[in-house]
Amino acid sequence: MLDFRPILFVIGVLLSVLAFAMAIPATVDAASGHADWQVFAAAGAVSLFVGIALVLTTRSGWGAFSVRQGFLLVSLAWAVIALFGALPFAFSELRLSPADALFESMSGVTTTGATVIVGLDAAPPGILIWRAILQWLGGIGIIVMAIAVLPVLRVGGMQLFRVEAFETDKILPRAAQLAGEISIVYLGLTAAAALLFWSLGMDGFDAVAHAMTAIATGGYSTRDASVGHFDSAVIDYAVSLVMVLGSIPFVLYLRVLRGKPLAPLRDSQVRWMLIVLASAIALLSAWLVHGGQFALPDALRYTTFNVVSVMTGTGYATNDFDLWGGFAMVVFFLLMFVGGCAGSTTCGIKIFRFQVLAATAGTQLKRLMHPHGVFLAYYHGKPVPEQVSLSVTSFFFLFIGAFGLLAAALALVGLDYVTAISCAASAIANVGPGLGPIIGPAGTYASLPDTAKWLLCLGMLLGRLELFTVLVLFMPHFWRG
Amino acid sequence: MLDFRPILFVIGVLLSVLAFAMAIPATVDAASGHADWQVFAAAGAVSLFVGIALVLTTRSGWGAFSVRQGFLLVSLAWAVIALFGALPFAFSELRLSPADALFESMSGVTTTGATVIVGLDAAPPGILIWRAILQWLGGIGIIVMAIAVLPVLRVGGMQLFRVEAFETDKILPRAAQLAGEISIVYLGLTAAAALLFWSLGMDGFDAVAHAMTAIATGGYSTRDASVGHFDSAVIDYAVSLVMVLGSIPFVLYLRVLRGKPLAPLRDSQVRWMLIVLASAIALLSAWLVHGGQFALPDALRYTTFNVVSVMTGTGYATNDFDLWGGFAMVVFFLLMFVGGCAGSTTCGIKIFRFQVLAATAGTQLKRLMHPHGVFLAYYHGKPVPEQVSLSVTSFFFLFIGAFGLLAAALALVGLDYVTAISCAASAIANVGPGLGPIIGPAGTYASLPDTAKWLLCLGMLLGRLELFTVLVLFMPHFWRG
Ligand SMILES: [K+]
Ligand SMILES: [K+]
Repeated sequence: MLDFRPILFVIGVLLSVLAFAMAIPATVDAASGHADWQVFAAAGAVSLFVGIALVLTTRSGWGAFSVRQGFLLVSLAWAVIALFGALPFAFSELRLSPADALFESMSGVTTTGATVIVGLDAAPPGILIWRAILQWLGGIGIIVMAIAVLPVLRVGGMQLFRVEAFETDKILPRAAQLAGEISIVYLGLTAAAALLFWSLGMDGFDAVAHAMTAIATGGYSTRDASVGHFDSAVIDYAVSLVMVLGSIPFVLYLRVLRGKPLAPLRDSQVRWMLIVLASAIALLSAWLVHGGQFALPDALRYTTFNVVSVMTGTGYATNDFDLWGGFAMVVFFLLMFVGGCAGSTTCGIKIFRFQVLAATAGTQLKRLMHPHGVFLAYYHGKPVPEQVSLSVTSFFFLFIGAFGLLAAALALVGLDYVTAISCAASAIANVGPGLGPIIGPAGTYASLPDTAKWLLCLGMLLGRLELFTVLVLFMPHFWRG
Repeated sequence: MLDFRPILFVIGVLLSVLAFAMAIPATVDAASGHADWQVFAAAGAVSLFVGIALVLTTRSGWGAFSVRQGFLLVSLAWAVIALFGALPFAFSELRLSPADALFESMSGVTTTGATVIVGLDAAPPGILIWRAILQWLGGIGIIVMAIAVLPVLRVGGMQLFRVEAFETDKILPRAAQLAGEISIVYLGLTAAAALLFWSLGMDGFDAVAHAMTAIATGGYSTRDASVGHFDSAVIDYAVSLVMVLGSIPFVLYLRVLRGKPLAPLRDSQVRWMLIVLASAIALLSAWLVHGGQFALPDALRYTTFNVVSVMTGTGYATNDFDLWGGFAMVVFFLLMFVGGCAGSTTCGIKIFRFQVLAATAGTQLKRLMHPHGVFLAYYHGKPVPEQVSLSVTSFFFLFIGAFGLLAAALALVGLDYVTAISCAASAIANVGPGLGPIIGPAGTYASLPDTAKWLLCLGMLLGRLELFTVLVLFMPHFWRG
């Protein structure tokens, strides 16, 4: 039997943190005279009560985690946080249905950014900042998980990023120290981004909310027209910059602080991300200018913003790229799958996996010519063990397979072809918007049937937790072991 | 330096076979009084002349093939056959442009079945039978290649199908014997199918042509309305049966002939293919009946035919499934990638690769729970070597990657989103029709820009030759080695 106590203990701690986070929207709503402050206060009290109850009743079980407990904790923690995070949506003046409330909350903590709320411009400030907080917490949660948990659990090739210092006995103190340092960096970047956005013309509230959702590559906006609302080229470029900063492995920022300012640019994953971004921007700009849709400055501005937004899986919009023609739609569809770097707030397949996939396929091609030769795949100058190659290539298969099954399921509950396909990709890659008039950059998820929303919650969770973490729970082996 | 002589020798032999095959449409056209018989006679003479010239000038170089020569031969042979096979299209009364003629011929020999010809019902019989012959030759060509060549070249996991008897010194005589036996089975199945179709009401010519393109899972029809022209439920089911027969590994038929009639049903690849087919048919029938589009008998008839046609990559149509709604479109889109069994005439990713992919991903999930355990992926009761898993998973990545790049390239030259995406899938999986009004089951490829047609020729060749075979030629390593 699995010992659930350490799992429930950690979930209790996380719920308590969530409860304190709810004090922020409560304060904001109270200060601006919105009655919703009571909803946040009540939801916070419930979360705190459950959290503390869990901590108190299970602390006796605290100890080292087994691998199975680790997997269960990760999936369960994310699901429970989404559940409690949904309370304010269900009971605020928006009165979202259970499916809508969970969808909005899950889309928040997984940093997906797909929304069912129409009328953001008129929404109470508490709800707006709560959406930003969910994404911001989800962002730092995923970074800490990618650094401290997933490599140890060997999820989808993440063992490549096992921090060497962890190979000692003092895993826990070292992980806690690293997580603390990175949280400070995350907070610092968010503050810097907020100041930048504010200095460029956003009001203070919008600046803080967008800073939080940009660094988390989450994409929730305070405006129905998303970042397009501000209609400013410098704001577009500034937000693009912050989204890129959120897509870089956060451990690299620690190296920057330790006197290696060029560390991010020396990282092959970051380099490839920038190369892919630049190529997509150049190609799409050329396409738009050639087609006469925009002059070069506007083309550059809109493609930069939207390519960065889609590939990093942020999901802000400034322009309805559904109207840019077939080539733009295909490029955006493909970019959804790419994602940013491992150890950042982005989701998707991620750059390092494409590097490993390409290197592995390359060695296979070489082996065809010299069946008895020994060829190693390299990542970042080091040979990739075959088990890591198998882990990454299996991840790719499961990602595409999950995408296909989700697309079919969404079509079965009534979505049209273009919506179902792009919706599935957008959910599993935690992007946010899809393609087409319904869920495209100018639409929302509000009109989708409830079954579709439940399916999408599962898809977002699967994608955010790198598939393996959730799928392993469905192996009969897991519960027998 | 590579010695090209053995390569050119074999190509010379194949061209001579092609030349003799051209005698058939020449005879048919002459018998029915069509002037096109001269085109076939001239094209045959040219092919024969070049073929014999190649044989005579290079026979001195005959000897054992190196691996590199093997790869070059396969790609070059398929391209050259497509080129000479295009001659009749360019010079017949259809007067196809160079891009159209090569497209039609490449679509024929790769058994894709995408057509640029509008007005098949009124086309001269020589051209109609020539299209069928190209697919029929392509079909047997691919079976022989899958049995005798690809396993030795270890392409994309095909080493699983290395015939044990080949592990001796007498590879060549054994391969030749096996190829001969299988060709007889192929011919026998074609004749039986033609008799069946004729007995069910097709005229002799249609019966023979459809038998050739059904067993080859090619999908060229003699009618603009494809098999829908005959509007007969029994013909639909009979053609479905022959398409399934064409999707089974042909070595299994030899076992049937050797007194093991149930051999195909004992093969796990065949079983899974039938399970996937049956599931898709059941799901789609339920969807159509539930949506009120068809009564159950019609729903079963149309879904059986079209599911079999798309999944086996044949590409006949009896009903415009583009009008069946979003779920049907997503299912057909996904089925395009699946394909049939290795060692048959089908293309696509193929059932055995999905079995290996699932088994490999399964072992990765088990390893997550027990990092130090040893877990083997199994295929057909035998452990799959890790190199085979890597070969198959790399194949999957390259297949999806090639699909994505081709879709982007097609959109760049002007295709809309739905057409570009489904066109790329259909070409690489050698299916034939795509989705949407342009290239859907009711459309043709005639209106596509020439650049798109050239790109599709490359895509069809890539897919038919299992990617690796062609991609290996693009490695600098290949030409240096
Ligand atoms: K997002
Ligand atoms: K076909």
